[in-house]
Amino acid sequence: MNSRIPDFNDVCAAHERIKPFINRTPVMTSRSLNEITGASLFFKCENFQRVGAFKYRGATNAVLLLDPEKAIKGVATHSSGNHAAALALAAKINGLPAYIVMPENAPEIKKIAVKGYGAQITFCKPTLQAREEILQMVVEKTGAAFIHPFDNSNIVAGQGTAARELIMDFPDLDIVMAPVGGGGLLSGTSISAKSMKPGIKVIAAEPEMANDAFKSYYSDKLVPSLNPKTIADGLLTSLSDLTLSIIRKNVDEIITVREETIIRAMRLVWERMKIIIEPSSAVTLAVVLENPEKFKNKKTGLIISGGNVDLNKLPF
Amino acid sequence: MNSRIPDFNDVCAAHERIKPFINRTPVMTSRSLNEITGASLFFKCENFQRVGAFKYRGATNAVLLLDPEKAIKGVATHSSGNHAAALALAAKINGLPAYIVMPENAPEIKKIAVKGYGAQITFCKPTLQAREEILQMVVEKTGAAFIHPFDNSNIVAGQGTAARELIMDFPDLDIVMAPVGGGGLLSGTSISAKSMKPGIKVIAAEPEMANDAFKSYYSDKLVPSLNPKTIADGLLTSLSDLTLSIIRKNVDEIITVREETIIRAMRLVWERMKIIIEPSSAVTLAVVLENPEKFKNKKTGLIISGGNVDLNKLPF
Repeated sequence: MNSRIPDFNDVCAAHERIKPFINRTPVMTSRSLNEITGASLFFKCENFQRVGAFKYRGATNAVLLLDPEKAIKGVATHSSGNHAAALALAAKINGLPAYIVMPENAPEIKKIAVKGYGAQITFCKPTLQAREEILQMVVEKTGAAFIHPFDNSNIVAGQGTAARELIMDFPDLDIVMAPVGGGGLLSGTSISAKSMKPGIKVIAAEPEMANDAFKSYYSDKLVPSLNPKTIADGLLTSLSDLTLSIIRKNVDEIITVREETIIRAMRLVWERMKIIIEPSSAVTLAVVLENPEKFKNKKTGLIISGGNVDLNKLPF
Repeated sequence: MNSRIPDFNDVCAAHERIKPFINRTPVMTSRSLNEITGASLFFKCENFQRVGAFKYRGATNAVLLLDPEKAIKGVATHSSGNHAAALALAAKINGLPAYIVMPENAPEIKKIAVKGYGAQITFCKPTLQAREEILQMVVEKTGAAFIHPFDNSNIVAGQGTAARELIMDFPDLDIVMAPVGGGGLLSGTSISAKSMKPGIKVIAAEPEMANDAFKSYYSDKLVPSLNPKTIADGLLTSLSDLTLSIIRKNVDEIITVREETIIRAMRLVWERMKIIIEPSSAVTLAVVLENPEKFKNKKTGLIISGGNVDLNKLPF
């Protein structure tokens, strides 16, 4: 099931399943950002989602779909980011244990958040190999179910519910855009968008400095991210076979942006919209800023992926 | 008219008048802030108002109530803050000139905002005396109508519309709380609250370091603010006879808070609610944090006054 390609029925079923647990997040507009960009922008504010990120949708769906007998042994993942917090809270709410493997150098604020949701943390060296090895040990010892942050059909279906709400609220969008890291949000978004409105254009936004999705999409193989370095710390991961295949099918274009535009876009949203978004969320607006002609007078939905920022380490 | 004490009819009339121009701002709640405080908090988000502050309500009402013959000469005020921007935009939208007297040391970001709304700025030395003298000269030269930021019935009536919306949305509030500087927002809030729900408690929040309203309220005379020094830069002004008389009649309590609690409250809102509020807006939550027993299990509406912050000068 977990690597089966989900379809829009899965998204709709996920939506019904997770509704009692998630926030129906608002869609915001901004006169001044419309003036600056010449576009007509609709921001789907997943920074107001529980745990401050869309990740809570997928994590909740995955937890609720566990086989009850297996579920009591809990869930496990390796992550230093929003997926860890999301899985920890989804497990807590369902009375299940959560085991999170985190690199020992993860930001203190994230360690506190994950601990606050009652998860058991195992620290590891900050390499992918160490993470996977330690996770394997944790899973073997506890019997917990490994919930991958994006290479998982149930996660992808859950993430697709954000775009579903957006298009339900604003059915006349011309374009919908999401950032791409591992591709869970983008895959789910693209499934909802193309199913609800076949003529809509789905665009992915990616930092130039972590452009593995761009390379994979425009070549014939999965290109891993090599030493990515971007302020958009949620977009460092590479696609999986599952997400790449969905993206190939449904996404019209992947556009990369410069770091300074990401920072400018983030600051614009903070200053003009008075909402806090994390750098990964600013990548979509950065695409609009760098390509104004493409979005001129176009009704464009942007998925704001999250709002978890360390206020002591702002880029401005 | 301008120093007549406004009543709830004036607020309702103001509301009808300004509705086409203002944003109906959302009321937000936060599970985690409710957990932290033990209260049940409802945040009326005037940081999402146009120009990023409630001031746009009063300024719009005052501009729309000008005698048409007088109005063509424009409006004038002295302010380095949100009232200047609000009046400038309200004038612009109505096709009227605006003349703003600003201290030469006003933050660059505020100068740019006011200029961006098309107002003519006259700079002055950063003293109240200089401001008033230069304003007098500007008014004599242009014939513009002076719109005081709070010592004006039409301004007070306009500011009262925020609380009216809040109580319309959440009629079962036990307490409503607003910050107090010059008292325009607090006066208007108290008129709406006591008229719509006589049993509601109206509490004012004030920085300990700028506690002139506290002193005036608990004595028998208007005590001016002497050398106030607080991070809540919107709350440096003193009450006027008009606002003090309204506050004496309608406000149940004024509570002062420490600077460090204001900063803590501001940071909590940024981190937990993912919205940007200015320090003056954080004073109400600071009151809750310092007096948890008073708000325990109480449905408390907090007016978030604005969200204009210089991101290069954050207190954390």
